[in-house]
Amino acid sequence: MPFEKFLSSFDPETGEVTGARITKRYLSELRGCFADSAAYEAALALADPLLYSVSTVDYAAGEGDLGYAVGVLMPGRIGPEYYMTKGHLHAWREAAEIYIGFKGDGVMLLQAEANGDRQMLPLRPYQPIYVPGHTAHRTINTGTVPLIYIAIFPARAGHDYAAIATKNFRQVVIEQGGQPVVLDRAEWLSTRGSR
Amino acid sequence: MPFEKFLSSFDPETGEVTGARITKRYLSELRGCFADSAAYEAALALADPLLYSVSTVDYAAGEGDLGYAVGVLMPGRIGPEYYMTKGHLHAWREAAEIYIGFKGDGVMLLQAEANGDRQMLPLRPYQPIYVPGHTAHRTINTGTVPLIYIAIFPARAGHDYAAIATKNFRQVVIEQGGQPVVLDRAEWLSTRGSR
Repeated sequence: MPFEKFLSSFDPETGEVTGARITKRYLSELRGCFADSAAYEAALALADPLLYSVSTVDYAAGEGDLGYAVGVLMPGRIGPEYYMTKGHLHAWREAAEIYIGFKGDGVMLLQAEANGDRQMLPLRPYQPIYVPGHTAHRTINTGTVPLIYIAIFPARAGHDYAAIATKNFRQVVIEQGGQPVVLDRAEWLSTRGSR
Repeated sequence: MPFEKFLSSFDPETGEVTGARITKRYLSELRGCFADSAAYEAALALADPLLYSVSTVDYAAGEGDLGYAVGVLMPGRIGPEYYMTKGHLHAWREAAEIYIGFKGDGVMLLQAEANGDRQMLPLRPYQPIYVPGHTAHRTINTGTVPLIYIAIFPARAGHDYAAIATKNFRQVVIEQGGQPVVLDRAEWLSTRGSR
């Protein structure tokens, strides 16, 4: 059966994908991502939990090939800031990506590399988010259950984490009065520092 | 809000997509697709129903850009052969495509352009079908309600219907005893001719 191998399946409740390549990210790998570094170090001194896993399915890495990944991002916070992915640009900057939520409550931060244009968008079932090329993107779980989503990308997109690791996103998504709000990172940090 | 326009939404029950470009295909546009041409002409003499609609969302057509489409394929048959899409190769042959079902019961026929390798795969929720480049593909509704699915593709993929219109797929999917079965088209036609 020549095309059998091109049929895969995933569990929308657990994010498990048959035959996928799995990347797991623990809290210790996200140093520098959370705005409150003291809260981060304090949490890490207690435990190093799994923050998210990404199961990737791709078959080839040619010009027209695609890949997909199912992400499972745990619920939780460091201080008031929700658990998040590291966030990345694509190594091949022109590569776009389409995200669709399956379960849980989440958002994405998008930020243009060139001019810093930025916005938080909701990540929900049946609401595809198109991440254009040259745009850093991070997934954030604002709910109380694992956030499960799918992302489809050109197979040759690749990841560039370095730019984000150095400068981080300009926005933070934090819990205020039980609701997620998006704030300017620098402003928020200066407010906290003055308390 | 710079990224607002990159959030879209679709109704998984109706296939409606906000702000999409819609293509509608009627029975009269599928001459040559169904194996039993007498049954096709007889059906068309009575009515010219909508067979399917495809709502496409894309934002750019550069190298790394993606598009997505939500398809709604009606239930029905011409003779014992289920309603189907015209089927196509991509104009840019290297372009792959990922299909995921949302509602209804369907299958896809995949057929390699180069050597005719072919197979029917189920089109179901949470079971992505990866259509590699250089592979003709057709969607078929084997159920009794509209088949709704999403397809994600490189934005520059394009469509080539001509090769399929000339030679058609080598396989047919027909109803036998209430079940869909896949058969060799030429064999099936010769069997029917001899009755």
